[in-house]
Amino acid sequence: MTNRFTPRIAEILSWYAGQNPGSLTNLARLLTHGRLGGTGKLVILPVDQGFEHGPARSFGPNPAAYDPRYHVELAIEAGCNAYAAPLGFIEAIAAEHAGQIPLILKLNNHDVLQDEKDPLGALTASVSDALRLGAVAVGYTIYPGTLDRRLQYTELAEIAAEAKRVGLAVVVWAYPRGGGLSKEGETGLDVTAYSAQIAAQLGAHIIKVKLPSAHLEQSAAAKVYESTNIPRESLAERVEHVVQSSFNGRRVVIFSGGAMNADREALLIEARAIQAGGGFGSIMGRNVFQRPRPEALKLLGDVMSIFEGT
Amino acid sequence: MTNRFTPRIAEILSWYAGQNPGSLTNLARLLTHGRLGGTGKLVILPVDQGFEHGPARSFGPNPAAYDPRYHVELAIEAGCNAYAAPLGFIEAIAAEHAGQIPLILKLNNHDVLQDEKDPLGALTASVSDALRLGAVAVGYTIYPGTLDRRLQYTELAEIAAEAKRVGLAVVVWAYPRGGGLSKEGETGLDVTAYSAQIAAQLGAHIIKVKLPSAHLEQSAAAKVYESTNIPRESLAERVEHVVQSSFNGRRVVIFSGGAMNADREALLIEARAIQAGGGFGSIMGRNVFQRPRPEALKLLGDVMSIFEGT
Amino acid sequence: MTNRFTPRIAEILSWYAGQNPGSLTNLARLLTHGRLGGTGKLVILPVDQGFEHGPARSFGPNPAAYDPRYHVELAIEAGCNAYAAPLGFIEAIAAEHAGQIPLILKLNNHDVLQDEKDPLGALTASVSDALRLGAVAVGYTIYPGTLDRRLQYTELAEIAAEAKRVGLAVVVWAYPRGGGLSKEGETGLDVTAYSAQIAAQLGAHIIKVKLPSAHLEQSAAAKVYESTNIPRESLAERVEHVVQSSFNGRRVVIFSGGAMNADREALLIEARAIQAGGGFGSIMGRNVFQRPRPEALKLLGDVMSIFEGT
Amino acid sequence: MTNRFTPRIAEILSWYAGQNPGSLTNLARLLTHGRLGGTGKLVILPVDQGFEHGPARSFGPNPAAYDPRYHVELAIEAGCNAYAAPLGFIEAIAAEHAGQIPLILKLNNHDVLQDEKDPLGALTASVSDALRLGAVAVGYTIYPGTLDRRLQYTELAEIAAEAKRVGLAVVVWAYPRGGGLSKEGETGLDVTAYSAQIAAQLGAHIIKVKLPSAHLEQSAAAKVYESTNIPRESLAERVEHVVQSSFNGRRVVIFSGGAMNADREALLIEARAIQAGGGFGSIMGRNVFQRPRPEALKLLGDVMSIFEGT
Amino acid sequence: MTNRFTPRIAEILSWYAGQNPGSLTNLARLLTHGRLGGTGKLVILPVDQGFEHGPARSFGPNPAAYDPRYHVELAIEAGCNAYAAPLGFIEAIAAEHAGQIPLILKLNNHDVLQDEKDPLGALTASVSDALRLGAVAVGYTIYPGTLDRRLQYTELAEIAAEAKRVGLAVVVWAYPRGGGLSKEGETGLDVTAYSAQIAAQLGAHIIKVKLPSAHLEQSAAAKVYESTNIPRESLAERVEHVVQSSFNGRRVVIFSGGAMNADREALLIEARAIQAGGGFGSIMGRNVFQRPRPEALKLLGDVMSIFEGT
Repeated sequence: MTNRFTPRIAEILSWYAGQNPGSLTNLARLLTHGRLGGTGKLVILPVDQGFEHGPARSFGPNPAAYDPRYHVELAIEAGCNAYAAPLGFIEAIAAEHAGQIPLILKLNNHDVLQDEKDPLGALTASVSDALRLGAVAVGYTIYPGTLDRRLQYTELAEIAAEAKRVGLAVVVWAYPRGGGLSKEGETGLDVTAYSAQIAAQLGAHIIKVKLPSAHLEQSAAAKVYESTNIPRESLAERVEHVVQSSFNGRRVVIFSGGAMNADREALLIEARAIQAGGGFGSIMGRNVFQRPRPEALKLLGDVMSIFEGT
Repeated sequence: MTNRFTPRIAEILSWYAGQNPGSLTNLARLLTHGRLGGTGKLVILPVDQGFEHGPARSFGPNPAAYDPRYHVELAIEAGCNAYAAPLGFIEAIAAEHAGQIPLILKLNNHDVLQDEKDPLGALTASVSDALRLGAVAVGYTIYPGTLDRRLQYTELAEIAAEAKRVGLAVVVWAYPRGGGLSKEGETGLDVTAYSAQIAAQLGAHIIKVKLPSAHLEQSAAAKVYESTNIPRESLAERVEHVVQSSFNGRRVVIFSGGAMNADREALLIEARAIQAGGGFGSIMGRNVFQRPRPEALKLLGDVMSIFEGT
Repeated sequence: MTNRFTPRIAEILSWYAGQNPGSLTNLARLLTHGRLGGTGKLVILPVDQGFEHGPARSFGPNPAAYDPRYHVELAIEAGCNAYAAPLGFIEAIAAEHAGQIPLILKLNNHDVLQDEKDPLGALTASVSDALRLGAVAVGYTIYPGTLDRRLQYTELAEIAAEAKRVGLAVVVWAYPRGGGLSKEGETGLDVTAYSAQIAAQLGAHIIKVKLPSAHLEQSAAAKVYESTNIPRESLAERVEHVVQSSFNGRRVVIFSGGAMNADREALLIEARAIQAGGGFGSIMGRNVFQRPRPEALKLLGDVMSIFEGT
Repeated sequence: MTNRFTPRIAEILSWYAGQNPGSLTNLARLLTHGRLGGTGKLVILPVDQGFEHGPARSFGPNPAAYDPRYHVELAIEAGCNAYAAPLGFIEAIAAEHAGQIPLILKLNNHDVLQDEKDPLGALTASVSDALRLGAVAVGYTIYPGTLDRRLQYTELAEIAAEAKRVGLAVVVWAYPRGGGLSKEGETGLDVTAYSAQIAAQLGAHIIKVKLPSAHLEQSAAAKVYESTNIPRESLAERVEHVVQSSFNGRRVVIFSGGAMNADREALLIEARAIQAGGGFGSIMGRNVFQRPRPEALKLLGDVMSIFEGT
Repeated sequence: MTNRFTPRIAEILSWYAGQNPGSLTNLARLLTHGRLGGTGKLVILPVDQGFEHGPARSFGPNPAAYDPRYHVELAIEAGCNAYAAPLGFIEAIAAEHAGQIPLILKLNNHDVLQDEKDPLGALTASVSDALRLGAVAVGYTIYPGTLDRRLQYTELAEIAAEAKRVGLAVVVWAYPRGGGLSKEGETGLDVTAYSAQIAAQLGAHIIKVKLPSAHLEQSAAAKVYESTNIPRESLAERVEHVVQSSFNGRRVVIFSGGAMNADREALLIEARAIQAGGGFGSIMGRNVFQRPRPEALKLLGDVMSIFEGT
């Protein structure tokens, strides 16, 4: 751990000063592990799609991925900073792979067996489970824009407080959704930046949002974007604005690509934009585990090269 | 117990590595008991229909079955791996039959005295009851697809954590239901596989689903089943897919027949499909206890012969 | 388990009628496991001497016995009913051997690093540990005759109540000791019978005492033994009296030989006396694990043959 | 972490199978950190002497050591596996050095402001403190041989259960002391091996004892050492016996030198004996921090070279 | 507060990095209040003598001091940093003087109605009381050297953890006492420095000790003081050593004079020594409130002038 504890890691930790040393320690574990360890950049493999979209949609394209061991081993071999999943997937591998890669236990999950405009996850694991399983962080998804977002914000607030009390890190997935937003609006720049801000205000250490489009959803916001000339033409500029919206870059924000089955070149272009815009990295799920293993490793390697700035 | 502790049992337990030895011990008790003990296959007798459908619908066809002793004695004589029931039925027989067959205490139950599209069970017993009564496992039913599934997932997550802490096994009945699904969809292959995945992600040791039809309910899923050519024509192929969807066969999945009062031959055909598809066994209730006792014993014996592969 | 659940086992369980079915179930597990399963007789391997006498005195004569796996594997191969040990030894094997043999977690232990006339054990594990580790019973040692026996009786009473609440069995080691007794008195018939009675009154399911001598320690008792002609000449008669003193045989009483490094023939003579006197079996530690493995297996086999009445 | 997760580390973790993955993860952190990371050997810097002996006796010889930062920085620079200290010293550095070296929070401490034959530590911190401060383990000292050892054993048993529940590792300092032992006896081979066994039976993951002398304290033990020819002439042989007494080498045992202000050559000879005898490493306090910093670094480096087998 | 929040205050707070900002805030309130606010020096008025010595001994010499308002008003008028007292005295003035001066609630107190060699205080208030009354800190007295010091250390550890959780500061009075120390030893330099170290290790933010004499009590310590030439001739040198023993000056240590009814000049000489030795200030009780009010104000003013370095 020592030699990966670079000045940049110390700088990032300084943004969370006054929080329990345990949370800083677990943040450091995330930031010093894997190929990007020490750069301040993160590539995380999240696999919650079995729960969120169903097994066939998730693992059908690459049936090896039905096996819970597949993912954690892929993440380890690729040199990811961490592996994130719901209770069942983590419990299935935590003993066998103890100490090999930082784990993020996703505490809430949502399925699509009932069609809903306004999704609301269920709490499927606890902070105690995260401790028992040796996770460095808990993960929680909020859906800003939904009717029940308030329940989520409050539940997250309670979980974050408990996690910090026992020295864990808190990773928040912020996915704008719900009846009040247009489909385009869910990834609009204003809405994405707003959601990142909400996650930061709720106490997230690490925030995960989708890459934003140039669309502006809310007219009141749109006026300001235009009057103050917030640059948003390029993806890098939009990434930069989301980073700025996350406490001026003093919270770690990572991005996922929007499109499933995106082609490799498109994904690398996105990674370059994240890097250019000062983003802290990528969280890549389906685009990784639905590819054949060698392609997945190659893709992760190329993305990491971009974040290494090489 | 020793000689039934076969290498296959050791292999199955290895899938749950890192969980408390108590839970492994109770899983071993289930897997080494009865005529199938040691094969890795299970035939379980569940009797919750008195609560779920009412006594006359359940026991009228074979009035001996009104007596709580009837079922456990049938299960013992037939050599089932376990007997599962709600608190009242278990409490009525647990002392008299202590040590004679592994018991599964079903912790939630649902009645049909009010007509509901979206069923929601009530918690009717606790993990403490399971310990007091000498059960090896708790059982819990989730209804993926219902409005209140989130309450069930969270309640199950809490119960599973508590059960594992005290060394019990966790058996989850996953019954897709609710307004968002067509009647056909409740046993559709995609929905069944998805429900099994959800149960596994929630931490189930053993998952119980209905035998799936070839129907595909969700269009997003249907596309993948077709594009990736997931075989689903035969029942055995569908069983195989559900097993795959349960952590690639690293969680124990057992099946019940869909049809009530199915004829004997149909049930044996189903058992052969479960066996051919790599399923871990059957859970048979009404089709057993609504038959006259000799027929029920014959049927269970024939099903066990199929799972013995003889 | 089924076919070993003989009428004799049912009869033994009937002595504990009204206790939680969980405790009966775990008693049944003890009584139906191993080569003697179903006979109502028990041979248990206890290994607490590492703690109680130190490792070299315990394992030096047979260095393979330093390894915690050695004992449980010996007990399994020999077909013992159970293996009993302190937390560390149980924790070291519980996962690897889950479900292979009933475990008894000894909750208190005493070392001899300070010379004491009146020994007093320390609580070194809990009922929760027993559940977590999948034990069927907790074990506890009382030293009737010591100054601090009251602390032990009360601690045992609390532990027994808790263990019964969660469905475990309670095994009590009753070792008379302390300044008030002569060395001979510690195994005197009156004192042994009295200690067994105390253990039974404290709620023990299974009582473990040393084989008694014909010595009578207490003059008030001696008068009655003589005036009422309680036979005590032969070891079998003395065993019979201890069994009688344990609720007229309605509590399970097992015996250990007093002498360490006893010769094989002497041990078989003792086993025959236990059998003749209606004792429920033997608990053999040092005399087993300090012998070379083949000899130990042979000895256990011969003892079991005696208890099988063959 | 990955590349230091060698097969040897996996082997060591396998000894603790069935314990929570969190505890395995934290053991892995200890075993994969620092210069010896991955070798299965440990060098730990403990600094509790400020509390145990007073500040002047501890830090007077090297006044830079009055500063709490001195020690953790020394441990980091030397490449130690971990730094162990009481609450105050850990709290003083945990934020500033979060994530830079595994921390062990010593939960009990003893001062010498009252002269006692039978020392008894006070609980000065909790498992919750360890989580809050980001420690990988809790430390606890037992004094086998003292009057109040029972209080210590029970307190440790409760702490170990709690620590394991939340996924921490448990390190036990076993120091024989008390009126029943001669001064020589405190480091006698029989007493040292016995103390290591007790710590293992109490559930320690890692055990710390003093290097034993050839002295045998207890006559009952001495007979066995002599009759079974346990080699004890060389220090390496004695280390080997203590390792054997710690579950046949299936618990991690580390050693400290007995003499304060030992000369450098003597310390290296001791380290070579630990290595030759199969010990898992050294815990070096005063002999490190009372030396001038360059000498301390040189000494630690040389000791690590020995454990690297180079 | 702003303009008194000098670089020195920021430096002092940095020593407590990683603790809850609430505790830092309350430390800052202490350090920025009153005439010395911002200098990093403290003069605190403590009045627990009514409980500790009885009212007549305490307030007889200046009967105005029977009134609880007398003390807090004196402290306010004199410009002290804080006022410290037991529950009754604080409760009697907290409303009327809310917001006028930082309050320290002394949580334990000891009376002299029974003569004891080894004093042990009683818990007379709680952390909740401190919050309710608006205190910035809790105070707690330990008596290192007494038989029951362990109870005190553990109680303090629990109180400190709770106080820090709710953002309070922790002030520890460390008074060596007990049968193992000579009367002279209670203020001996070695014992005083040791006690300060213990308080720091127990997590104190601010430590209060008596001014030490040149006496060395413990022979093992005396050797080191002499061999390493720790200067102790002048009071300033001894203060310096105690500051060094409190984490090399990274914990705030304040001093009280030993002699009751000392003359004014003696007290000023002591204050000058504290200042010269780098002490953080004085805590003056009887020497203040037993003087007539004008004299007391004059004395406090002169002491503050010394700490202002003017």
